[in-house]
Amino acid sequence: MDEPLYYGDYLQLDALLSAQRLESARDGAAVHDEMLFIIVHQAYELWFKQILWELDEVRAIFSRDRVDESDMGRVVALLHRITEIQKVLLQQISVLETMTPLDFLDFRDHLFPASGFQSVQFRMVENKLGVRVGDRLRLAGAAYTARFDEDDRLVVERAEHEPSLHDLVEAWLERTPFLELGDFDFWEAYRKAVLGMLDHDRAVVEQNPNLTEEERAEQLAGFEQTYAHNEAVFDEAKHKALVASGERRFSYRAFQAALFITLYRDQPALHDGNRVLTLLMDIDEGFTTWRHRHALMALRMIGRRVGTGGSAGFAYLSRSAEKSRVFTDLFNLATFLIPRSARPMLPPEVAATMRFRFEE
Amino acid sequence: MDEPLYYGDYLQLDALLSAQRLESARDGAAVHDEMLFIIVHQAYELWFKQILWELDEVRAIFSRDRVDESDMGRVVALLHRITEIQKVLLQQISVLETMTPLDFLDFRDHLFPASGFQSVQFRMVENKLGVRVGDRLRLAGAAYTARFDEDDRLVVERAEHEPSLHDLVEAWLERTPFLELGDFDFWEAYRKAVLGMLDHDRAVVEQNPNLTEEERAEQLAGFEQTYAHNEAVFDEAKHKALVASGERRFSYRAFQAALFITLYRDQPALHDGNRVLTLLMDIDEGFTTWRHRHALMALRMIGRRVGTGGSAGFAYLSRSAEKSRVFTDLFNLATFLIPRSARPMLPPEVAATMRFRFEE
Amino acid sequence: MDEPLYYGDYLQLDALLSAQRLESARDGAAVHDEMLFIIVHQAYELWFKQILWELDEVRAIFSRDRVDESDMGRVVALLHRITEIQKVLLQQISVLETMTPLDFLDFRDHLFPASGFQSVQFRMVENKLGVRVGDRLRLAGAAYTARFDEDDRLVVERAEHEPSLHDLVEAWLERTPFLELGDFDFWEAYRKAVLGMLDHDRAVVEQNPNLTEEERAEQLAGFEQTYAHNEAVFDEAKHKALVASGERRFSYRAFQAALFITLYRDQPALHDGNRVLTLLMDIDEGFTTWRHRHALMALRMIGRRVGTGGSAGFAYLSRSAEKSRVFTDLFNLATFLIPRSARPMLPPEVAATMRFRFEE
Amino acid sequence: MDEPLYYGDYLQLDALLSAQRLESARDGAAVHDEMLFIIVHQAYELWFKQILWELDEVRAIFSRDRVDESDMGRVVALLHRITEIQKVLLQQISVLETMTPLDFLDFRDHLFPASGFQSVQFRMVENKLGVRVGDRLRLAGAAYTARFDEDDRLVVERAEHEPSLHDLVEAWLERTPFLELGDFDFWEAYRKAVLGMLDHDRAVVEQNPNLTEEERAEQLAGFEQTYAHNEAVFDEAKHKALVASGERRFSYRAFQAALFITLYRDQPALHDGNRVLTLLMDIDEGFTTWRHRHALMALRMIGRRVGTGGSAGFAYLSRSAEKSRVFTDLFNLATFLIPRSARPMLPPEVAATMRFRFEE
Repeated sequence: MDEPLYYGDYLQLDALLSAQRLESARDGAAVHDEMLFIIVHQAYELWFKQILWELDEVRAIFSRDRVDESDMGRVVALLHRITEIQKVLLQQISVLETMTPLDFLDFRDHLFPASGFQSVQFRMVENKLGVRVGDRLRLAGAAYTARFDEDDRLVVERAEHEPSLHDLVEAWLERTPFLELGDFDFWEAYRKAVLGMLDHDRAVVEQNPNLTEEERAEQLAGFEQTYAHNEAVFDEAKHKALVASGERRFSYRAFQAALFITLYRDQPALHDGNRVLTLLMDIDEGFTTWRHRHALMALRMIGRRVGTGGSAGFAYLSRSAEKSRVFTDLFNLATFLIPRSARPMLPPEVAATMRFRFEE
Repeated sequence: MDEPLYYGDYLQLDALLSAQRLESARDGAAVHDEMLFIIVHQAYELWFKQILWELDEVRAIFSRDRVDESDMGRVVALLHRITEIQKVLLQQISVLETMTPLDFLDFRDHLFPASGFQSVQFRMVENKLGVRVGDRLRLAGAAYTARFDEDDRLVVERAEHEPSLHDLVEAWLERTPFLELGDFDFWEAYRKAVLGMLDHDRAVVEQNPNLTEEERAEQLAGFEQTYAHNEAVFDEAKHKALVASGERRFSYRAFQAALFITLYRDQPALHDGNRVLTLLMDIDEGFTTWRHRHALMALRMIGRRVGTGGSAGFAYLSRSAEKSRVFTDLFNLATFLIPRSARPMLPPEVAATMRFRFEE
Repeated sequence: MDEPLYYGDYLQLDALLSAQRLESARDGAAVHDEMLFIIVHQAYELWFKQILWELDEVRAIFSRDRVDESDMGRVVALLHRITEIQKVLLQQISVLETMTPLDFLDFRDHLFPASGFQSVQFRMVENKLGVRVGDRLRLAGAAYTARFDEDDRLVVERAEHEPSLHDLVEAWLERTPFLELGDFDFWEAYRKAVLGMLDHDRAVVEQNPNLTEEERAEQLAGFEQTYAHNEAVFDEAKHKALVASGERRFSYRAFQAALFITLYRDQPALHDGNRVLTLLMDIDEGFTTWRHRHALMALRMIGRRVGTGGSAGFAYLSRSAEKSRVFTDLFNLATFLIPRSARPMLPPEVAATMRFRFEE
Repeated sequence: MDEPLYYGDYLQLDALLSAQRLESARDGAAVHDEMLFIIVHQAYELWFKQILWELDEVRAIFSRDRVDESDMGRVVALLHRITEIQKVLLQQISVLETMTPLDFLDFRDHLFPASGFQSVQFRMVENKLGVRVGDRLRLAGAAYTARFDEDDRLVVERAEHEPSLHDLVEAWLERTPFLELGDFDFWEAYRKAVLGMLDHDRAVVEQNPNLTEEERAEQLAGFEQTYAHNEAVFDEAKHKALVASGERRFSYRAFQAALFITLYRDQPALHDGNRVLTLLMDIDEGFTTWRHRHALMALRMIGRRVGTGGSAGFAYLSRSAEKSRVFTDLFNLATFLIPRSARPMLPPEVAATMRFRFEE
C-alpha cells in the first residue's frame, strides 16, 4: 500500500531547498545577499517553466486544424494566468532591487562569466511566443545563443523552429469564417465605410465658410495623404511589402480578421476571440514592461559596466525591450478602427450565425 | 583550474526544474493544472527560505547585548526586503486563483492527506517572528504540529524555543538609553502631559456656558472614565496583568520605549528605530493580509469541505489570521500618543545626545 | 463656433484642484499631512463614483427580462474593470499608511465628528452590490445610516430598495434555460452522480481488507453524515430553511444554475456566464480584502481609541468585513462540485443548443 | 458656534462629484466609457497635486543652508510616500486599459484638441524634479509648452526656474562634510584603492601561466582602456566636459559625495542620506516605468494615429521616457563602486564624527 503523501515529499523540498549553494561561501566568506540573488533567479526559472507549460497548452489548442469553440474558454483562462504570473515576475524585480550595487559587488566576481543571458527557458518563452531570430540583437557581436553550452543552444534553437503562438494565432485568424459569408464581404464593406467617412469629412472642409483659402488648401492636402495611406491598407501588395520589410507581421488575411473581431466584438461568437487578442496584447505589454524594468535595474546594479554576460548593459537591454515585442500588429490595429457609428451593419444572416443555437 | 561558472549549474536548474512530479500523472492522466499547484507552492517555499534567511540575520543583530548603530541601516533594509517579498507572496495567491475549484477537484484526491499545514518553513517563520504556542489554534483537536512527521515536528518545535524577533525587539527596546537621563524622566513627563491635557479639557467643560447641566454631567462622567483608563497606563501592576492575560505582550519598559521612539522619532538617533517599528507593523500587516486572502482563496477552492489537512477550512484560517498577529502592541501604540503640541519638550542635554558628533 | 476644448476645462481642474481646504489651516497652522488625508479620500470618492457608474450599467443589463448574449461580453468587461479599480483602492491604503498616527493626531481633532462612515457613495456601492440591511452592524447602537444628514440618509436608503446586483444575478441564474431540456434533468442527473460516487466509496470501505473493524465502523459512520448532508442539498425545503436563516442567499433554482454553469463551463454558451460568476467572487474578495486592510490601517492609526465616527474601531471594522460579503453562495459552490470524471454527460441535443450556429 | 464638520462638506464632494461632464453627452448620446476617461484623469491630477505638495516640502527642507539632521527622517518618509503614490499612478494605467480603442473612438473626436500634454501639474512635477528644458523633445516642432494657454504656460515656465530637487540635492551633496577631514582625503584614498585593484589585477594577468600570449595581450590591452577610463574619473576637467555635454549632471564634488555616501552607507550619519539617494532612484524609475507603460497604452489606444495633442504618439512617448530621467548620475554610480574588501578604511576620528553622541 502507498505511503500517505507528505507535503515535503510531494514538493520535493529536499531537492528544492538544498539547491542554493553560495559561490561566495566556497572561500569561506558567504555573502548574505547572494542567497537573495539565487532565490530570485530560481523563482524566475520556476515561473518560466510554468509559462512554458501554459504556452505549450495554448499552442497545442491552436495547432488543431479547427479550434473547438469549447476550448476557447480555456485559452482565455490560460492566457489570463500568464498575465497574473507576469505580475509576480514584475514584483520580483522590486525584491531584487533591495539588493544594492555595493552588496552585489561583494560576490559579483564569483559569478563571472555566468549570466542571465544563459537562461534557456526565458529564450524558449520568447521563441514560443514568436520573437523572431531576425529581430534578435547581437550579443557582443555574437548570436543571442552564443553564451549557451552546446546542449542548451540546441534546445533554444529547436524552439525557434516550432510554430510560435504568434504564427498559430495568425493561422487561426486566417480561418475566421465570417469575413465573406453569402453576399457579405467585410473588406469591401469596411473599405466603403472608410472612404465614405473621408468623403464626408472632405466635403465639410470644402464647404466650410469659416476657413481661409489657405487653411482649406492645407486641410485638403492632408486628405490626399490620408487617401494615399488608406490605399496602402486596401492594397494587398503594399501590405506584403510591409511584411517583407518587417514593419508588419500578420498576413493580409489575418490582419483583416483581427480588425473584424475587434470591430464586431459584441457578437457572441467573437467574445472569446476578442479576449484572446486583448490578452495577447496584455502579455506582450507585460514582458515589455518587465524588460524595461529589468534594464533599469541592471543599470542601477552595475552602472555602465559591462554585464557579467558581456552585454552592453542598459543600452542593449533597452533596445531589446522594443525589439522583442511580438504582437505589434495588434497594437497597431487601433490605427484602422472606425467609430461604431460608421461601422458597416452586419447583414442579419451573418449576425445570426454568430449567435448560439438556443437563442431564438 | 575551475570550470567557468554556468548559469544553469549555478542555479542548479537540473534539480530545480525536475522537481515537479505530478501525482495525477502516476495513473497516466496528468492534470494540466497540477503543475501550477506544484510550482506555486515551490515558489512559496523558496521565498519562505529567503524570509527565514533575513529573519535569522536580523535576529542575530538584535541578539547582541548592544546593537551597533552601524547595523541599524542594514536591519531597516532587511526588514524592508521582507515586505517586498510579501508582495510576491500576495500576488502568488492571485496566480493560484486562476485555478478553479473544478480544476482542483481533478487532482485533489491524489494529494490526500498532504496539506499546507505541513509547511515546516512557514511555521518556522511564524515561530521566529513570535507567534506564541499558546495562541495557536488546535487543528482538528490536535496540536498545530500534529500533521508533521517526527523530524519536521522537532525542527518546528525547536524554533518555538529560539528567541523570536518579537522578544529580541522587546529586549532592545528595554535597553533604550534615553528614557531616564540626568533629570529627565520620560515617563513622569509624559504622565504630566497626559494629565495636563485632561485637566485642561475638563476645565473647558466645567466652564462652558453653552452646555446644559445634563450635558455637562455626562461629559464630566466621561472624564472620570478616561482618568481611570489612564491610571491603568501608569500603573505597572495593571500593565503586568494585561500581559499575563495575553492582551499585551511588551514589558512595561519596552512599551514605554516604543512610545518614546514614536513620539520623538524626529531625533536623529531615533530615525532608524522608528523605521524598524514601522516595518515590523508592515510585516505583521503583510502576513495578516496574506492569511485573509489565503482563507478566502481556500473557501473559493474547496467551499465548506474539510481541507486536505483536516482543518475546518475557512473559519479556521480566518480566526488564525487574527490570532497570528505578533506586533499587536505596536498597533495599539496609537492609543497612547499625544499631539506634538502637548508632547513634553526634551531637555537640551537629552536631545543633544541623540544627535551626531559632527553636528555643532 | 465652439471654443476648442482645453484639457483643464474638460477635467474642470479649477474646481477639482481648489477643493482641498485644510481644516488645520483655519487657525493658521496648516498640518502638512492633512493634504494627503483629503486627497486620498477624494480619490476614493472619484473611484466610488466610477464603480457606481459601472454597477448601474451592469445592473441595467441584468434588469432586462432576457439578457441579450451580445451584452455579456460587455458585462464581463465592466466587472473586470471594477476589479482593476479595486487594486487602485487597495494601493491607496498603502499610500495613506505613509501618514503616521503622530501626524494624524496633529489635525485629527479638527475633523471631529466627520467620519468615513459618512461616505454616501460607499454605502451605495454596498447596497447596489447586495449587502443586506439585516447584515449591517449597529454603529454605536444606531443604524448604519445614523451618521448621515437627512438628504444623504434618504439617498442611501433608496439604494437599499433598488434591485441589487446580487438579486439581479440570482434572477438571471433562475432563467438559465439548460437545466431541463427535453429528457435532460440536470438536477436529477447530478443527484444520481453524487449518490453513485458515495455508494462506490462506501463499497470500497466495506470491502477493504486492510481496515480494522473499528476503522471500518468509523469510516462508515462518516458516510452516514455525508448522506444526511447531501439529502439537505437535494431537499428544497431544507434549502429554503437555510435561506430563511440567512446561511444561504440564492434561491434553490439559482443555486442549481450556478452549479450547472460551473460544472459545464466549457460549453461555449456558458463561457461568459462562468466568467461573470468568477468576477463576482473576485469583486467580493476585493472588497473584503480592502475592508480587512482598512481595519488594520485604522487600528494602526488610532489604536483602540474610538473612531472619529464613534465606532468601536478595529473590532467593528473586522467583523464588518465578514458580514459585508455578498456572493457567499458562489464561494460555497465548491462544496458541491464533483470531479469531471463523475460529471453527468450532457445529452448531445442539450450540448448542441449551447454551441454557435456557425459550428457544424 | 461652528457647525459640526460633515464628511461630504470637508471633502467638498458637491464640487468634486459634479465635475464630470461628458462631452459626448452634449449631443445627447453619452458614451459610457467617457466617464472612466474623465475620472482616471482627475484622479491623476489629484495625485499630481499631492506629489507637488510633497516635492515642495522636500525642496523647502533642502533649500536651507544646512539641512537639519532632524529633518532627514521626514525627507525619507516623504520621498517614500511619493513612491507609494507612483504605484497608484501605475495601477491606474491598468484601469484605463480596460477601455478599448473602439470605446475610445466613440468619444475621441469630442475631445479634440485637448490632450494630456496640457497637464500643467505633470509638467511642474517634471520641472521640480529636474527634467531640463534642454532635454525636452519638441512637440510637433514646437516647444513642450506650446499647447498650453497663456496662463498655464507661464506657470509651467516659472517652475523651470525654481531650484529643482535635483539641483538642491546636488548642492546638499556638495556640502557633505566628511570628504576631507583632518588628514583624510576621500578622493585620494579612493583613487589609490582603484589603482591598487587594477595593478593587482594586471599583475595577475601578466603572471598567469595559463594564458596564451595572445590572450595575455588582449587582456592587457583591456587594462589600458580601463586605466584611461579611470583617469577620466579622476580628472575634474574631464568630468566638467561630460557635464557640459549633458552626459553627466552632478558637479564633480556632488558626484564624489554621492559615491562616498554609497560606499560608507553603514556609518550612522549616512543612513538617511543613503536612503535619500536610493529613493531618488526609485522615484526616477517609477516615473520612467509609468512613461513606458503610458507609451504602450497610447499605442494600444490610438495605434499609429497622431495623438489628440498632435504628438507623434508612441515613438515620441518612448523617447521621452528616456529623456526625462533625472537622477541618471545616481544610476551610474554603480560603475564606480569598489568592493568593500578594497574600500579604504575610514580613519577612526573620521568614523567617530559620524556616530551619535550617546555612543561611547
